[in-house]
Amino acid sequence: MKPTSSTFLLPALSIALSYATLVVGAAHAQTADPAAEVRRVLASPIYQSATAALDKEHGRIVEDGIKPTEIPAPPFGEKARAEEFAKMLKASGLSDVQIDPEGNVLGLRKGTRSDGKVVVVSAHLDTVFPAGTDVKVKRQGTKLYAPGIGDDTMSLSVLLGFVRAMKTAGISTCDDILFVGTVGEEGPGDLRGVRYLFTKGSYKDKIKSFFSVESGDVNRVTHGGVGSKRYRITFSGPGGHSFGAFGTVNPMFAQAQAAVEFARIQVPAKPKTTYSIGLIGGGTSVNSIPVSSWMEIDMRSESVDELKRVEDRMLKIVQEAADGENFARSTKNAKITVEAKLIGDRPAGNTDMKADIVQIAKAAIEAGGYTPDLNWSSTDSNMPMNLGIPALTIGRGGIGRNGRTHSLDEWEDVEKGPMVKAMATSLSIVLSATGME
Amino acid sequence: MKPTSSTFLLPALSIALSYATLVVGAAHAQTADPAAEVRRVLASPIYQSATAALDKEHGRIVEDGIKPTEIPAPPFGEKARAEEFAKMLKASGLSDVQIDPEGNVLGLRKGTRSDGKVVVVSAHLDTVFPAGTDVKVKRQGTKLYAPGIGDDTMSLSVLLGFVRAMKTAGISTCDDILFVGTVGEEGPGDLRGVRYLFTKGSYKDKIKSFFSVESGDVNRVTHGGVGSKRYRITFSGPGGHSFGAFGTVNPMFAQAQAAVEFARIQVPAKPKTTYSIGLIGGGTSVNSIPVSSWMEIDMRSESVDELKRVEDRMLKIVQEAADGENFARSTKNAKITVEAKLIGDRPAGNTDMKADIVQIAKAAIEAGGYTPDLNWSSTDSNMPMNLGIPALTIGRGGIGRNGRTHSLDEWEDVEKGPMVKAMATSLSIVLSATGME
Repeated sequence: MKPTSSTFLLPALSIALSYATLVVGAAHAQTADPAAEVRRVLASPIYQSATAALDKEHGRIVEDGIKPTEIPAPPFGEKARAEEFAKMLKASGLSDVQIDPEGNVLGLRKGTRSDGKVVVVSAHLDTVFPAGTDVKVKRQGTKLYAPGIGDDTMSLSVLLGFVRAMKTAGISTCDDILFVGTVGEEGPGDLRGVRYLFTKGSYKDKIKSFFSVESGDVNRVTHGGVGSKRYRITFSGPGGHSFGAFGTVNPMFAQAQAAVEFARIQVPAKPKTTYSIGLIGGGTSVNSIPVSSWMEIDMRSESVDELKRVEDRMLKIVQEAADGENFARSTKNAKITVEAKLIGDRPAGNTDMKADIVQIAKAAIEAGGYTPDLNWSSTDSNMPMNLGIPALTIGRGGIGRNGRTHSLDEWEDVEKGPMVKAMATSLSIVLSATGME
Repeated sequence: MKPTSSTFLLPALSIALSYATLVVGAAHAQTADPAAEVRRVLASPIYQSATAALDKEHGRIVEDGIKPTEIPAPPFGEKARAEEFAKMLKASGLSDVQIDPEGNVLGLRKGTRSDGKVVVVSAHLDTVFPAGTDVKVKRQGTKLYAPGIGDDTMSLSVLLGFVRAMKTAGISTCDDILFVGTVGEEGPGDLRGVRYLFTKGSYKDKIKSFFSVESGDVNRVTHGGVGSKRYRITFSGPGGHSFGAFGTVNPMFAQAQAAVEFARIQVPAKPKTTYSIGLIGGGTSVNSIPVSSWMEIDMRSESVDELKRVEDRMLKIVQEAADGENFARSTKNAKITVEAKLIGDRPAGNTDMKADIVQIAKAAIEAGGYTPDLNWSSTDSNMPMNLGIPALTIGRGGIGRNGRTHSLDEWEDVEKGPMVKAMATSLSIVLSATGME
């Protein structure tokens, strides 16, 4: 997706959300008061029945979380886990289950008053852990240890739990709900799953709101998506013997000049905007003028415009640095050239604080006795947020019940009480947002 | 060795060589005319007898070169080859053969009028090739292919050939000759063998002149040793999340600043002085402010003073760059620090063009019908040259009879005629310089 298009989309969305949230945010019959809608859901006997089902099924949900955790799902290697999740989604009672060409698992639950659009409730299939990582789950009391157990594999099982609980309780929603297991949420995946869903898949232009269920505490609500652009910048030149070919252009000198200029860019504290050089490399031996040199750059912003400003400046700087080196040393054998390869592109965006789904999430979390923690992060929700589609990333775990995410000793405490209470709260958000009948 | 000491040694040597070469360069009875001495050697029947022995033994010399070539001798891994060479040196008839603590193989051939000092005739044991390289020799007609076959393993066998030919011909020399197989001539070895020989070994202060027999054409004479200093510069800092910890000092920004300043240093064309950054690295992921960053720097000069000037400036630059970064960004968690580690130190030096051994080498090469090619390079001779001891690196192969040095398809053509003629010429240099009786 091009940042130019999103630049125009975002201000338009802000206006729509401020003055017409009821129209944009929900097609089903809904009160003007999201908090009242949450209260209605929470008080209804069928919701109570659904939470009783979650309580009864707690053991199965845990087991269903362990199963996919032990199927490795590194970035770009989610296939086996996706196939298993598709099977489980079918077994949970959804009829229309498919794996899309990107690898996402989709399962539709029809609503009673569908307007042809869907509310997505998703979790991500992939983990940050490379192929070969030991993903065997180890238990210690109620604590489960395994890479990816919390982020985000247990959430897949929680989605299955929602589907079954809704069925057991006989819940109907106005809206169609599309349950999704996405690929590519983590680093190198670069949101490829959710990107496909919103820009190419069969539900493109048919998604009216989006929930990503994540490993975090149930009171966390990510309503802002920090955008990021990552580049691998490679400077190339003729190389040569460090003594014999002295005076020849050196790609590392050009790169250094670029880095120095890059480090001088002023950025605003609000919307928070940042940049860094995180990795560098190049060269073959200490006594050779290198033929190439590279650096990997990370730029982030809460604002599409600020991110683009830094990106544009960086691209200009690297070209100027290459040109400058070509004027500073000999180009007899070849000139320094520079290639800027986009290796990461997470679009920025946010869901207005006044949007229905934000109000619903806050009310549901407060009703559960938690204190809402609204924050910005970089998740699958970045994509819909950037496109102006109301989206939130919500938690589904007890407070402080998971840790060491992205490390080999990642853990999740599945103690029944806190886990069921948190799942019930998450479910109440989904049901309030989809118009439980 | 400190460049400061050599700074004082070298000018002193130049004077000595210019006005007192006969005294400094040779203890044995010698004419004032090195060319005449070469003519005397070449015309003598015992020299003719020695060359006849080389001719007769050509096949054995080739086989004795193949044997050590097939024993891997990577930098710091020359032990097995050294032990084999020590055995061969003993078998060639030298009595006093030893391996010194650094790993050099030493074999003494007593002279008839020894002044207690020795003339070293050496070749190096090590190759540039890492452990695991296939070092099996492949023949194609008179061409032998193998990593290290020419540089410098066949030279070890040529030394053995010299020892045997001198014995067969009944040659005595005035001077003691110390035949040496050195370790650590190539890159990372950093001249450790010859450095030990001249600064710590039992022959320290007892070497009056030095020949390194190398793979090159017999007409090449290296009389100047380009000095080099190599550093690995490491910048370290606290690191942090690229978004969360934005504003924190970044070691890569400090390094870039240092590289930019380094690239601005003016150096003279004569004495040729050069610098380069050849390798860079650092960082753990694109989205982390790195905790460290490094670059490997190569500086060379034909002049001790110029080399020191560039080195001093570089060391100042890297400190200034670290300081500058500490003023440019937050040091709340830690400051940027910089470590400069010397990873290569080849002292510069040269043997005066008027020195006896240079005149002898020129005359012998011309007498062989070749055109002397006097040059500067970086070889084992750097060490004695820097200490003010007359030293030359000489060839021992036919013109254009070797190639692809330092590559896996290195080759040497051992065709008898050109090889024997070249060896005979090299031997005449050694005999003229040691006072063949």
